[in-house]
Amino acid sequence: MSKNKLVKATFAIILVSAFFSSCKPKDSSDAVSGDAAQKVYVAPGKYDEFYNFVSGGFSGQMSVYALPSARLLRVIPIFSVDPQSGYGYSEETKPMLNTSNGFVPWDDQHHLELSQTKGEVDGRWIFANANNTPRIARVDLKTFKTAEIIELPNSAGNHSSPFITENTEYVVAGTRFSVPPDNANGDVPINTYKKNFKAYLSFVKVGAKGEMDIAFQIEAPGVNFDLSHAGKGKSHGWFFFSCYNTEQANTLLEVNASQKDKDFIMAVNWKKAEEYIKAGKGKKVAAKYAHNTWDEKTHTAKSEIRTSVLVLDSKELKDICYMIPCPKSPHGCDVDPTGEYIVGSGKLAALIPVFSFDKIQKAIAAKQFDGEYEGIPVIKYEAALHGEVKKPGLGPLHTEFDGRGNAYTTFFVSSEVVKWDIKTLKVLDRAPTYYSPGHLCIPGGDSRKPFGKYMIVYNKITKDRYLPTGPELAQSAQLFDISGDKMKLLLDYPTIGEPHYAQAAPADLIRNNGQLKFYKIEENNNPFVTKGEKESKVVRQGNRVDVYMTSIRSHFAPDNIEGIRLGDEVYFHVTNLEQDWDVPHGFAIKGADNAELLIMPGETTTLKWIPKKVGISPFYCTDFCSALHQEMSGYVRVSPAGSNVPLTFSLGTNLPATK
Amino acid sequence: MSKNKLVKATFAIILVSAFFSSCKPKDSSDAVSGDAAQKVYVAPGKYDEFYNFVSGGFSGQMSVYALPSARLLRVIPIFSVDPQSGYGYSEETKPMLNTSNGFVPWDDQHHLELSQTKGEVDGRWIFANANNTPRIARVDLKTFKTAEIIELPNSAGNHSSPFITENTEYVVAGTRFSVPPDNANGDVPINTYKKNFKAYLSFVKVGAKGEMDIAFQIEAPGVNFDLSHAGKGKSHGWFFFSCYNTEQANTLLEVNASQKDKDFIMAVNWKKAEEYIKAGKGKKVAAKYAHNTWDEKTHTAKSEIRTSVLVLDSKELKDICYMIPCPKSPHGCDVDPTGEYIVGSGKLAALIPVFSFDKIQKAIAAKQFDGEYEGIPVIKYEAALHGEVKKPGLGPLHTEFDGRGNAYTTFFVSSEVVKWDIKTLKVLDRAPTYYSPGHLCIPGGDSRKPFGKYMIVYNKITKDRYLPTGPELAQSAQLFDISGDKMKLLLDYPTIGEPHYAQAAPADLIRNNGQLKFYKIEENNNPFVTKGEKESKVVRQGNRVDVYMTSIRSHFAPDNIEGIRLGDEVYFHVTNLEQDWDVPHGFAIKGADNAELLIMPGETTTLKWIPKKVGISPFYCTDFCSALHQEMSGYVRVSPAGSNVPLTFSLGTNLPATK
Repeated sequence: MSKNKLVKATFAIILVSAFFSSCKPKDSSDAVSGDAAQKVYVAPGKYDEFYNFVSGGFSGQMSVYALPSARLLRVIPIFSVDPQSGYGYSEETKPMLNTSNGFVPWDDQHHLELSQTKGEVDGRWIFANANNTPRIARVDLKTFKTAEIIELPNSAGNHSSPFITENTEYVVAGTRFSVPPDNANGDVPINTYKKNFKAYLSFVKVGAKGEMDIAFQIEAPGVNFDLSHAGKGKSHGWFFFSCYNTEQANTLLEVNASQKDKDFIMAVNWKKAEEYIKAGKGKKVAAKYAHNTWDEKTHTAKSEIRTSVLVLDSKELKDICYMIPCPKSPHGCDVDPTGEYIVGSGKLAALIPVFSFDKIQKAIAAKQFDGEYEGIPVIKYEAALHGEVKKPGLGPLHTEFDGRGNAYTTFFVSSEVVKWDIKTLKVLDRAPTYYSPGHLCIPGGDSRKPFGKYMIVYNKITKDRYLPTGPELAQSAQLFDISGDKMKLLLDYPTIGEPHYAQAAPADLIRNNGQLKFYKIEENNNPFVTKGEKESKVVRQGNRVDVYMTSIRSHFAPDNIEGIRLGDEVYFHVTNLEQDWDVPHGFAIKGADNAELLIMPGETTTLKWIPKKVGISPFYCTDFCSALHQEMSGYVRVSPAGSNVPLTFSLGTNLPATK
Repeated sequence: MSKNKLVKATFAIILVSAFFSSCKPKDSSDAVSGDAAQKVYVAPGKYDEFYNFVSGGFSGQMSVYALPSARLLRVIPIFSVDPQSGYGYSEETKPMLNTSNGFVPWDDQHHLELSQTKGEVDGRWIFANANNTPRIARVDLKTFKTAEIIELPNSAGNHSSPFITENTEYVVAGTRFSVPPDNANGDVPINTYKKNFKAYLSFVKVGAKGEMDIAFQIEAPGVNFDLSHAGKGKSHGWFFFSCYNTEQANTLLEVNASQKDKDFIMAVNWKKAEEYIKAGKGKKVAAKYAHNTWDEKTHTAKSEIRTSVLVLDSKELKDICYMIPCPKSPHGCDVDPTGEYIVGSGKLAALIPVFSFDKIQKAIAAKQFDGEYEGIPVIKYEAALHGEVKKPGLGPLHTEFDGRGNAYTTFFVSSEVVKWDIKTLKVLDRAPTYYSPGHLCIPGGDSRKPFGKYMIVYNKITKDRYLPTGPELAQSAQLFDISGDKMKLLLDYPTIGEPHYAQAAPADLIRNNGQLKFYKIEENNNPFVTKGEKESKVVRQGNRVDVYMTSIRSHFAPDNIEGIRLGDEVYFHVTNLEQDWDVPHGFAIKGADNAELLIMPGETTTLKWIPKKVGISPFYCTDFCSALHQEMSGYVRVSPAGSNVPLTFSLGTNLPATK
């Protein structure tokens, strides 16, 4: 294709996209049912029905909403630093963001997956992927804290992640941007892509307590793996990954990776892969990746660097990976609650192919192949196909399920959600969305047991939906009632960051899972804990000064400290002695160039402070804690380097005036 | 007081506080009127009535809500870095967070004030204070961007800020934690507080385009200045500051600063102060403080360090400052719409004193003084008093006004809002809040023209109001309808950070103020702009590599770059060529240890990247921009230091394979 043609093709695509995304819709409020207000209203003091966990996209964090009110309960820091809570700034949390590339304070968080037991959401943990520096995190739903992060070697653009198997045996990760493997010479021309670039699929084992470990990686051809979902029920033991750029282009992908009519969904027999690993077929390969864990007893993270992974080669082991042709750059890859149907959504397609697990198995057994792609058998399209949803819309992206035999697919280009029957493939209903939806979410909607009452659609374009806020606008979500035959729009609401995938679960499942309300002070094993005010102290070792400080309404102990010198490194280890829910204290000191601390009841947290100026530095509680919160403050005196002001600390009794 | 007594006194206060804050309320949903759901519901596609600007507290940012739906429109980064947008990480925005103490990535943002003309909210700018590193910021409401930040020397704990005069002549700042002045020897014992510690009040001049400059500071006694409000109408020309710790304690303030029955409100005649400045009475004092400004033409901030301020001495100039006794540690200091009444809220008091501006003037004229406090005349309490609201509740904190002669005061300890008549001082209504309110907000509620339809109360304790989220909970707000005689609770909603003060304005005032939707590419004067794809290039100067890159749906130009070497500093200057609203692009590269960029249409933004590994680093668009967004990516090849791989860049045409 000439450059001119490329440009024209690109332009045509932009035009189609722009037309659909900018055409002014009819007044959508007309489409809202009269009782929508009552349906989304949760009266003060009443609880919502569902927790909704929403990826933050470029914020790197996770938002927790309540449904149907769409109230934002909290934002949980995962992959980006959070100066508001001190996450990534306190000495205890810094190791959580360590990687093989050093400390990384930001990432792009796209997908979330709740842990499952027997294919049903179980409310224990939620997993999150990081795209830019490939990682998977586990958030503990007893504490709503990031408990573990594991880095993924040999990968770039970890997009088809963190989807899980039906008993949370594995959480997976694929490579969106193929690169030379970590232990190869990566200093190669970019246009040697086809020869040197590879994609790796990681299968991360999840233990009984949630602990993660890379069980094995599968080396796959250098293409772009996009999304994935595990088989379930009858298809348990298989995983399905969509991939695009099977053209293996390395530049101007919008044109060069849009050449083929069909790319692939790769079906992976992970139980077979497990057998090969047991049989010693895994190749131990050098790799460097961080594994970071949070200890709830010491309230401290540690980061370990691991040095190898086991790799299986998809070309050599002919019966673990199969390619299924899928129209035009497939994006979403979704498996219905029975495990029989696999839905591929080609983002440039005008139909939706639905594949049958039974047919795939038969096709494999009967070797109904159309040759190989880079050494991997390609199943004949028709042999794997249950059928196609005809004329559903333009640009299907993602599909969720209601557990009543219906599928709901978002269409970015034609800006709508379409409901269709999984078996008959008939379109049952369609609803416009404002504008250009990406992911959607039905509580349990990718599990064996969906709770098909609500559907949330996460739109990519906001424009005029809300009062304007300058050039930058929040992304917009829409809540639908899907309990009846027709989808009913209930509510529009802006969101945090850019929501991609989301998960939701009945509130009681999480609310009653043993929510931690505060840390018991007697179980606090932080090495710098101060378990009572009398034990508070300030200790110097060379130029390191450790302040063992306590906080309780409404004072710090000590609150007057003298004898700090320029050149010192001061560590404030603040233990919050409160033993009740929702009595955090904060700690900030003037001149700090990092963050504050928010310290939950019973917790110890550490702020490092390097004073830069001689003089008096006030510190104070940053979280309004009592009627006398404004009085919760203190002073540190900083003297010049070499000063002989003695190290003293006190509370309530004035220090002796030394000059 | 013996240490034992201190402990007992403290304990008693905690008990009172704990009792009121933890007593289980009756089911508050019973108190909600039947049509509350309809009243807060804003149908999809419809706009809210008010913008509500809410301080972020320990988040350092500002949240923008829409009322009555309580939907969060956006979070605006001001005083803390924002890895989500690149604020504080991009080369252009880094100077915004520079201070005399270097780069400070976090602060504690408590109060907001909309600009006013003739005492009415005018929708041009909103000002924000930083507590920990004393600063004032101005956010431009055409762009919703932080446009300017000025640091305040001689201060610590900048709390009574950023309140303004009725034509936005000045924005003020006080000192909460008195410290030795910056140019004094600060290496003094903390218990020399009374002798060496001072509080400064800053009067920052605001120019026609919003530009800020410290006109003068007033040196005041070493106490804790807490809150403030300008006079208006008849009292225009005066400013009122509450202060506590007039005991001048420096340790265990919860006891030692709660000894006196009355502290003070300080009345400042700033017009008189202006006269003294004109007359050359200001003393030019050395000081070091940063002044940071954002240029909308270059999309770039610059930071300048200033070196002096003019200081007036409140002890010497006897007719600019007067102390008005105010019961028990006054916190809120609020002036009614007429300017006649000044409400002081003693946070340990069980009554509310209301002072009369006319009486204050008469008392000053008649010298009805009770001696002096640290050289400042103290007006007799009764001479200044309009009257007291009797038995209103326990622990009054803040008051706002509805423009119909009514005041609304929050009570932290008794957890309620009380409506009372400003003239008669009669309590008219009371409503429980859940739990323990701090600030409250009525649109225009501290201006001459309140819009008294809604009231939002920001509570300090959340506990069981929403589905639990582990030990850490969001702070909770409550929306009331105050259009009738009785306050009606409409809605509870969690918030971002810790809201302290908030402001609100009719939506049209801001929506129709010339909202900027995108930057015109022809007006982009960023020194590293690339105004068309053909101008994109990569330039090496020594080990500095500048990438002049463009982004447009759906590719970067260039998207293949080779010849980068370990040891290089690479600057990606990304210009978003889009010229339509809400088409941002993002930019992230693997191995970055700072953030991503979000680039608004027509804008140029720069990410610094120091590659640490030899190999191929993918980059991609982080903001879903089109059906082919997933294809919007590229590669950088990093070679070892000293490599002779030539510097090349391309789009669509494969680079020559050089080996």
